[in-house]
Formats: sequence, structure tokens, C-alpha cells
Amino acid sequence: MDVIEVIVTKRDGGELSTQHIDWVIDAYTRGEVADEQMSSLAMAILLNGMNRREIADWTQAMIRSGERMDWSMLDRPTADKHSTGGVGDKITLPLAPLVAACGAYVPQLSGRGLGHTGGTLDKLESIPGWRASLSNDEMLGVIRASGAVVCAAGTGLAPADKKLYALRDVTGTVESIPLIASSIMSKKIAEGTGALVLDVKVGSGAFMKNVDNARELAETMVALGTDAGVRTVALLTAMDRPLGRAVGNALEVAESVEVLAGGGPEDVVELTVRLAREMLELAGVSGVRDPADALKDGSAMDAWRRMISAQGGDPDGLLPVAAESMTLEVPSTGVITKLDAYAVGLAAWRLGAGRARKEDPVSFGAGITLHVKPGDVVREGQPLMTLHADETSRFDRALQALEGGYAVGEAGSEELLPLVIDRIT
Amino acid sequence: MDVIEVIVTKRDGGELSTQHIDWVIDAYTRGEVADEQMSSLAMAILLNGMNRREIADWTQAMIRSGERMDWSMLDRPTADKHSTGGVGDKITLPLAPLVAACGAYVPQLSGRGLGHTGGTLDKLESIPGWRASLSNDEMLGVIRASGAVVCAAGTGLAPADKKLYALRDVTGTVESIPLIASSIMSKKIAEGTGALVLDVKVGSGAFMKNVDNARELAETMVALGTDAGVRTVALLTAMDRPLGRAVGNALEVAESVEVLAGGGPEDVVELTVRLAREMLELAGVSGVRDPADALKDGSAMDAWRRMISAQGGDPDGLLPVAAESMTLEVPSTGVITKLDAYAVGLAAWRLGAGRARKEDPVSFGAGITLHVKPGDVVREGQPLMTLHADETSRFDRALQALEGGYAVGEAGSEELLPLVIDRIT
Repeated sequence: MDVIEVIVTKRDGGELSTQHIDWVIDAYTRGEVADEQMSSLAMAILLNGMNRREIADWTQAMIRSGERMDWSMLDRPTADKHSTGGVGDKITLPLAPLVAACGAYVPQLSGRGLGHTGGTLDKLESIPGWRASLSNDEMLGVIRASGAVVCAAGTGLAPADKKLYALRDVTGTVESIPLIASSIMSKKIAEGTGALVLDVKVGSGAFMKNVDNARELAETMVALGTDAGVRTVALLTAMDRPLGRAVGNALEVAESVEVLAGGGPEDVVELTVRLAREMLELAGVSGVRDPADALKDGSAMDAWRRMISAQGGDPDGLLPVAAESMTLEVPSTGVITKLDAYAVGLAAWRLGAGRARKEDPVSFGAGITLHVKPGDVVREGQPLMTLHADETSRFDRALQALEGGYAVGEAGSEELLPLVIDRIT
Repeated sequence: MDVIEVIVTKRDGGELSTQHIDWVIDAYTRGEVADEQMSSLAMAILLNGMNRREIADWTQAMIRSGERMDWSMLDRPTADKHSTGGVGDKITLPLAPLVAACGAYVPQLSGRGLGHTGGTLDKLESIPGWRASLSNDEMLGVIRASGAVVCAAGTGLAPADKKLYALRDVTGTVESIPLIASSIMSKKIAEGTGALVLDVKVGSGAFMKNVDNARELAETMVALGTDAGVRTVALLTAMDRPLGRAVGNALEVAESVEVLAGGGPEDVVELTVRLAREMLELAGVSGVRDPADALKDGSAMDAWRRMISAQGGDPDGLLPVAAESMTLEVPSTGVITKLDAYAVGLAAWRLGAGRARKEDPVSFGAGITLHVKPGDVVREGQPLMTLHADETSRFDRALQALEGGYAVGEAGSEELLPLVIDRIT
């Protein structure tokens, strides 16, 4: 097999054979195909696409580049959720223990944030003592102790994807639905979950800015999961405004704990319960206990405390707080018609909540607390949002990011996506 | 400036600004932009194209990456020719001294062969003692002594092109008209010639298989030359069958000497004279002496002998001869309707005349002598062609390459391109 033949086939609009794909992924993982060859192939794939069979082959080849986990020794079914990323999207935190409390195991391998969207591991690491890196045996121990585990993927899982993802990041080849779908699904299928609910975000704060692209990505991923024997459903959900009222690592942990205590913002509760029901139904354990009840009766909170403790964290530990804060006021009387997710995410990133490069640290206390949400009736001068940072010097650039990011207008003039836009099976 | 911004602009169908192009070429030459980033950009350019302004900027940026030669100290105008490469295309050998004999200087920086097309330097190196590498001062000395110099481009000329060409070769991004045109023209403009005639080959043995693509390449290159102040004309010429009767390094030198002696195959003579007239007219010295006369009266041969001697070669030296030969016969009586340039080029390559990788040596004696040409009336059993190689073991794969590459049929059934298809100004 010759790498030029593979590249030229896709470049000229042809279909890559299973042999092409198996060979090129394997040769790239071994270093026989060079980065500059894989990046020109990735650009050709981005511009000329891949059909369903090619994407399935590409995903399977990436899974075969490493180990595939197996949870068949467990006495309950497994279910997981993956979000394509958004602003204030802390849903995994209440969701994993909630689903565990309702009868399924949740073995979630998760990631860190890059750019304006946060990462689940960064959020959990703001809890004193909590550890993201676990061996496979430790993962099993945490699941048995608490019903759910959220930890970092080891290096043995889909190594081809790790290498390719890092390459795409620096070569302008991230925004390809076949490559995004196969990257996400290779990791989720290798993780070994029996059921998977995909939360595909749509809007300014999401990777997919419009519903059509999000639907295409969702359909592609559902097909990949189904073909690989993982029961898979996708929800398209709103990311035109932030989820909840907290954006930033420790701020989002605190909000998640509120939800687990039976309170918390309406949208976070609604989406958490909806995703939990989908996961339980796919896992075949629906009807045993309703997730809304498990939030109210403390059983989800109990699972959370066990899960955090089992990974070395102190569920009662004090969360980090940023040294400086600054509260913005509502500029005029009326209704909040706009609170742009991307503007808020970018501002939180600049306040220190996110990282620009993989090796950067994050500030656990930095972020934004929203005092109002779109649709709220407001009076001029009331608190709009509070910015949190470790240094006051960060406020200026955060304020620039927020310029034009919110608006007050007349009631009924706000245009918002429904929280759950569609369901793809 | 950010390389991702440049890549994404072209990926999404946008136009690269002059600043984008200047920055990316400079940063790539300095190693700040990595190979894997340039190769994804090259693929995006191949698939989404560049407009005339972008190609001109790209070419100028590559020229500025190194030195630009200057021949203004010479007392006559300069003219050069560049061929896009073909089978049996030895035209530079008689042409350069011929033009010198008619009143213009020819400062030609040339290359080596790769794949099935031969390289001018490889052909000349079959002459005992002849040296391809000259310093700038030595080049000037050879021009002053003989009126023409053909030598290897130094490393100081368009280094960005050298680096990019090597990258494109291994990343499936060779076949882009903007990148081919800018690669050729950056070297020719940096070479400092005042006039340039482009011989754009069309047909199976050429890089451009059809007239439309060849015309697009020719128009792009003529525009680039003109914009850069080099008087430029292109001819589209036939490469559906080999040029002349000799294919292979020393074999082509011998045929070139025949032409310089007033003989030689009709097509080689016709194209040499036509290209010489174009060069002299562009250089503003037409009418002084007609090239057809200079071939007959020995003045072109005198210039050749001076040129070869000035570069250390012995114009009377014995040329290398391959140890083994094998003559094929015409299979049936009729007219030669097909003698495919690619088949003959590939066979000559496999006989040892060409190289598979840059570091491979070539066999000077290897190649093919054609005893008949398309349109010739032939009888079954008469000699068709003779294969030359240093080892008999090479004949088998050469014969495979020739399968289906020639045909005998009825008179008038041959379909051949005219030798000169079009002229682009």
C-alpha cells in the first residue's frame, strides 16, 4: 500500500477502501506515514467528505489501534453520555451519579477544556484531593463503590485518535464532520459502554453553529454507535445561551451540587433529568426509579459523595474562590433578549477558567456568575453578572469579549432555541 | 499572523491576502510553519484554487526567499526556454547553443529527471567530464565563452520552492496548476532571464494529459512572467508520442549532435527551430540570423562545442553505451498508428535511463532507439525499436511497459496531435 495512492484517491473525490483506511491508520500510528502526509489526507477528507462506510471503517481502525475496555463483569448495564461541548455545560457532574442512583453504571472517560468550552476533568479537579487519572482496576473499584466514575482516558485507548486529534488541531483540519464523529465515537466505543446518549450542542457557544450541521453530526455518530453494537441516541440541545447560571470550574461544581441537593437552575435540572431518562431507557433499566425523584430524595447526592470520595476528593472540601470580582449592571429596563453563549464563554476563558494551550493551567475560581437569564424581566441597575478572576488585570479583556454579547429589549422579542431541539435515533 | 488563519481562509474557499502569502512562505522557509501545516494548506490550494493575484504573490514570495540573478552586465539580451517535461525531449541541448549562435545569451538553470521524463542535466552528464554545478562566476564565464550555459540551480535560488516541492512530492499535492506554475516561474524569474519561452507538453507522456489543462497552465505561467517583467510566450506542443527517435541520456545527446550537424529527426529539428525563433523574437534579436541556417552552417555546432568544453566536457569524447540490447519487430504490415509516449518513457525508465528516487543514479547508456515513428508505412518483421540496458534482467519489465503502447493499422487511422498545438501570449 502506498500513502500517495490513499491521499490521491480522496483528493480526487474517490472512496477509500477498507484496506486503504486500515493501512493508513495503522501506518500513521506506527509512524510510517508522516504527519505531513496525514494532514494533507485530513484536508482532502475535510473538503471531499467520507461516506457512512468509510467513516465506520475509519472509526473501527482507530479503535483497533488500542485497547477496548470491557465491563461485562459488572452486574448492571452501563450507560454513558457525551456532550460536544458548550458554555456552562456541567451536566456530567450531576448526571453520572444520578444515573448510578437509578440503576445503571456510568463508566465515563472524559477530557479537559480547550478554548472557550470547559472540560469536565478541569471542573472536578477544583474539588480538593480529587484525582482524574485512574488505572483500569481503580476505575472498576470506583464504579463498584459508587456506580459511576468520571476519569481521564488512558494512553492505551484509541492512540491513533490522540495522535490525529493533536495533528488536526494545528493544521486547520478540525471542522470535518466525518473526522469529528469518528474521533468522538472511537473513544466512546473503546470505552466499552453498552449505551450512549450524545448531547450535540447547537448555537454560538457550540462547535456546531446551526441545526443542520448538528443534525448531520448527530446522525453520523448515532449510525457509528449503532453499527458498533452500542445502543446510541442523540439529543440536539441549545447552546445559544449558557447552561445554568455558573460558568467556570469551581462555580460549576457548586451549581452541580445545588442540583444534586434538589435545587439549581431550571434548565440544568431539566436537561440532566432528560438525559438521565434517555440513558436509563437505552440501558434497559427505565421505570425502576425516576431521575427527578432521585434528585429530590438525596440518593443522587449520596452517589455523588461516594464517587468523589472514591477518587480521593473531599465532597465537603471548600472550593477555590477567585481573589477578585466585578459585578456588571443591567444597562436599561426591559427583558433580557440576548445572552450570547460564545461571548460569555470567551469572557470566562479570558478570566482564567480555560486554557489556550494544552499545557496551560486553569484557574479553578475564575469564571462568571449570571444573575439574569434570557427572558427575565429586568430593571436598569440591577446586577447582570459577576466576573471572577485571580487578577483584576483580566477584567478588561473579558469586558471586551462581552461587548454586544447581551441585550435588553421588549418582551417577546427574544429569539431562543428550545432547550431540547430534536432527538435523533 | 497565525498559520491556522491562513489555512482556514483557503480551506473555506476564501482569498489569501498578500500579507497571508508573504508571511506563510517566509515562516515556512524559516521552519516556523511546520511541514504538516504547509501540506494541509497545499491540499486546500489544490482543491480550492488560487486566483491570478494570489498566484503572483505566491511566486514573488518564493522568489524573495532567495537570491535573484542579474545578467544586466552582459552586452546582449538573454532568453531561456523551459519545458514541462516529456519523453525524448532533448530540445534544450541543440536549442541553447543555436540561440547563442543567433545573437542572444541563454542562461539556463535546469534540473534532473524524476519518474518517466528525463532531465537535461542527466543527459549532459553522459558527456565525459561535463560538470552541472557551477558558481555564479563560472556561469558568467561559460556564457561569455560560448553564449549559453546549462547548469544546476544553486541552493540560493528560491529555497522556499525547493522545500515546498519536496513536500508536495510526498503528500499528494503535486497536481495543482497554481502550485506547478508558481514553482516553475519562481525559479525562471529568479534565474534572471529577460525573455522566456515555455514549452508546455500535452499528451500521455506529459504532466498535462489534455489541451485544456495545458492551456490553463500555460496562460497562468505567461501571466506570471509578464507580471514579473519577463517577456514570456508559451507553445503547447505534442507529447502523445516521443520526440525524435532517441529516448535515454547518451542516446539523446547523440541525436542532439546530429541536429547540430544539420541532420536529425524532422520533429526535433522543427521544434528546435520554432522555439529558437520565438526566443530570438522575444529577446529582440530576430532577423540577425535565422536558426535554420545556423544549424546548416555549423555555427550552432561551434557554440555547442564551446559550451560543452567550457563546462569541462569533451565534445569529441565517446558517449557511454549500454552493455545489452534487444530489438523488437513490427508485428504486422500496415501503418504505425500509435507509439505512446508514456509507454516508451516508462520502458526507458525501467531500462535504467531514469531514477525512482532523487538519490538514485541513472544509467547513461540505457534507453530506447525508435526505428519507426507514427505514420510510417511498415512491413511485418522490420525493426520497431531497440532497447538498451546494462543488464538483460531489465528487459522483461520494459516489455511489460510497452504492452499496448504501439499499434499497426490502416493508413489515415492514426490520431496524432499537431507538433505545435497552440501559441499562448
